[in-house]
Amino acid sequence: MIVALAGGVGGARLAVGLAAVLPPERLTVVVNTGDDFEHVGLAICPDLDTVMYTLARLNNPELGWGRADETWSFMETLQALGGETWFRLGDRDLAVHVMRTAALARGERLSDITRTLTQRLGIAHAVVPMSDDPVRTVVVTHEGELPFQDYFVRRRCEPAVSGFRFEGASSAGAPDALRSIMGSRVDAVVVCPSNPFVSIAPMLGVAEIRDWLARRTFPVIAVSPIVGGEAVKGPAAKMMRELGVDASASGVARYYGSLVDAWVIDQRDAEAEPEIAALGKRVRVTDTLMTATAKSAALATAVLELASEVRRA
Amino acid sequence: MIVALAGGVGGARLAVGLAAVLPPERLTVVVNTGDDFEHVGLAICPDLDTVMYTLARLNNPELGWGRADETWSFMETLQALGGETWFRLGDRDLAVHVMRTAALARGERLSDITRTLTQRLGIAHAVVPMSDDPVRTVVVTHEGELPFQDYFVRRRCEPAVSGFRFEGASSAGAPDALRSIMGSRVDAVVVCPSNPFVSIAPMLGVAEIRDWLARRTFPVIAVSPIVGGEAVKGPAAKMMRELGVDASASGVARYYGSLVDAWVIDQRDAEAEPEIAALGKRVRVTDTLMTATAKSAALATAVLELASEVRRA
Repeated sequence: MIVALAGGVGGARLAVGLAAVLPPERLTVVVNTGDDFEHVGLAICPDLDTVMYTLARLNNPELGWGRADETWSFMETLQALGGETWFRLGDRDLAVHVMRTAALARGERLSDITRTLTQRLGIAHAVVPMSDDPVRTVVVTHEGELPFQDYFVRRRCEPAVSGFRFEGASSAGAPDALRSIMGSRVDAVVVCPSNPFVSIAPMLGVAEIRDWLARRTFPVIAVSPIVGGEAVKGPAAKMMRELGVDASASGVARYYGSLVDAWVIDQRDAEAEPEIAALGKRVRVTDTLMTATAKSAALATAVLELASEVRRA
Repeated sequence: MIVALAGGVGGARLAVGLAAVLPPERLTVVVNTGDDFEHVGLAICPDLDTVMYTLARLNNPELGWGRADETWSFMETLQALGGETWFRLGDRDLAVHVMRTAALARGERLSDITRTLTQRLGIAHAVVPMSDDPVRTVVVTHEGELPFQDYFVRRRCEPAVSGFRFEGASSAGAPDALRSIMGSRVDAVVVCPSNPFVSIAPMLGVAEIRDWLARRTFPVIAVSPIVGGEAVKGPAAKMMRELGVDASASGVARYYGSLVDAWVIDQRDAEAEPEIAALGKRVRVTDTLMTATAKSAALATAVLELASEVRRA
C-alpha cells in the first residue's frame, strides 16, 4: 500500500500519476482539510475537491480549482443580491458543497461522504480526508491572524506570514479508513509536491498521523514543491522567504528534516542534489513538472522506484 | 393601506396588479409560508419566491415557479452525484436559497431576510411572510399524512386529500412588519386567487392574523381562485371535489363564509353571482384571468373599487 499525502494542485496531479500506475487496492490519497471552511452556510473542502475533480478528470487546469465544465449563474445572482463573492462557487461545484453540507448536517462523517462522492465521480482509488474532525489552518501574519481562506483567497496571500496554527489538529483523530491502513503493511508514504506549511503541515498536526510517521518502518518519499526557487503554483516560496527558510529544493529538504527519507527534485534544481545528499537522503533528479497525465505517471513511477530503492537499501 | 394575502402564481399575479396601481406605502403583500421546507439542507420558501420573482419580473411564466433566466448546471450535477432531484432548484434560484439559509442560520428573521432580498431585487412594495416562525402544511390524504412538498411536487397532487394540518401555526406569531399594520388603519384586505386550503388557510391558522380579521373594521375582498369549475393553476378544484366542496365560485364563497365580505368572480362564472349575493356578499363579475400585467392591474383596480364600495355602504 502506498499512502500519498496531498494538498492542492501539485498533490492532485501526483495523485493522478500514482492512480495511473497503481491499482485501487494499492493507493490511498490522504488529503489536507486544514483549508476547509464554512462559506455562505456551506461546508467547503477546497483540497478534497481539487483532488476529487483532478482524479475524475473534471478539474479546471487554468484556474487550478473547480471544474472545467463550470457555469456561473449562481455566483452572478449572488453578486446581484449583494451576497459574498470573494470566494467563487461554480454551479456544478455547488452540487458537491450542498450535498456534503447536508450530509454533515445529518451527522455523516466527512470520510464517508468523500467515499460516496468519489465513487459517484467514477474514482476507483481511495481519497480520504486527513480527519473527520474539523481542523482549521490559521495564518499568523504581520497584520494579525487570518483564517486560511481569508489569507489565501480574499487577501491573495499578500500579508507576510510569520507562522501557522492548526486549530483542532491536536485533538483530531484519523478517519477509520486511514486508521486501518496505519495498522497494516504500508510500502511507502509519498509527500506530494504540495505546500509544506499549509497543505502538509496540517496533516502532520493530526497526532495519530504524526505518531504513525514517527514510528514508521516504511520510507517517506517527497517530491520537492519548489522548482527553480519558486513554487509551481501558490505561495510556498513566498512563505519560505517570509519565514527565513531558503526557497530552494534543499531548503525544503532541511525544513522537512527527518520526516522525509528520500527526495525527488526537479532537473532545474540538480545543483541541490549534493546538499540534500549531505543530509543523508537519497535524491532522484528528474522532470517534476506535471503538465500532462503521462508526466504525472512518469513522476509517480520515479517516486515508487525511489521508494523501492530505499526499502532495499 | 391594502393588505394582500397571497400564495403562489395567482396571488403573485394579483400582487403585481396591486403594485401597479398602488404606491409602495399603500400595499403590503403577506405571503404563505406553510409550503416552506428544508431540502438538501436549504431553506426553501416557494410562495415567497414566486411572489418575489413575479414582482421583480424575473419569474418563469411557463413553469409557474423559479426564474425565467434560469440555468440548470447544479441540478444536472446533483443528479449525476446521486442527489435528490424531485424538487428542481435552478442555479440562479439557488442564490436566494443559499443566502436565506445562511441568514436564518445566523439567527436573522425570515421577514428581515425577505425585506433585504426584495429590496435587492428592486421590489418597492413590502413583501412579508405570514410569520417568522416555521409553519408547515401537512396534507392528510387517503394514503396518510404527507408534508406539503411531498404531496405537491413529489406526488404531483395525486393522493386524494381529506384534510390539512398547519404545524406550528397556532403558536406562530405575525412578523413585526405585519403587527404594526394590524395596529393601524387598514383600508381592505385582499384575499388573492390562491389555493384556499394550502395558500390562504395556513395564514388564517396564524392566531394573530385570524383574530385580527375576526375583529376587523375594514372589508375583506376576495378574488375567486376557481374559474369555470377549475383552478387556473394547481390542485384547488381537485381538492374541493375530494373534500366534497362544490368546485365553483359559489362553492369557494360558501367555504370562506364570513371571512370574505365581497367577491370578484370571473365572467365565465356569471351564473354564480346570484348565489353569492344570496350569501349577503357584494359581487363584481369581470375578466379575472391575469395573462398580462395590464390585466392584473385591471383586476386590482376592480378589487379596490369593490373595497371602496363596501366601505361606503
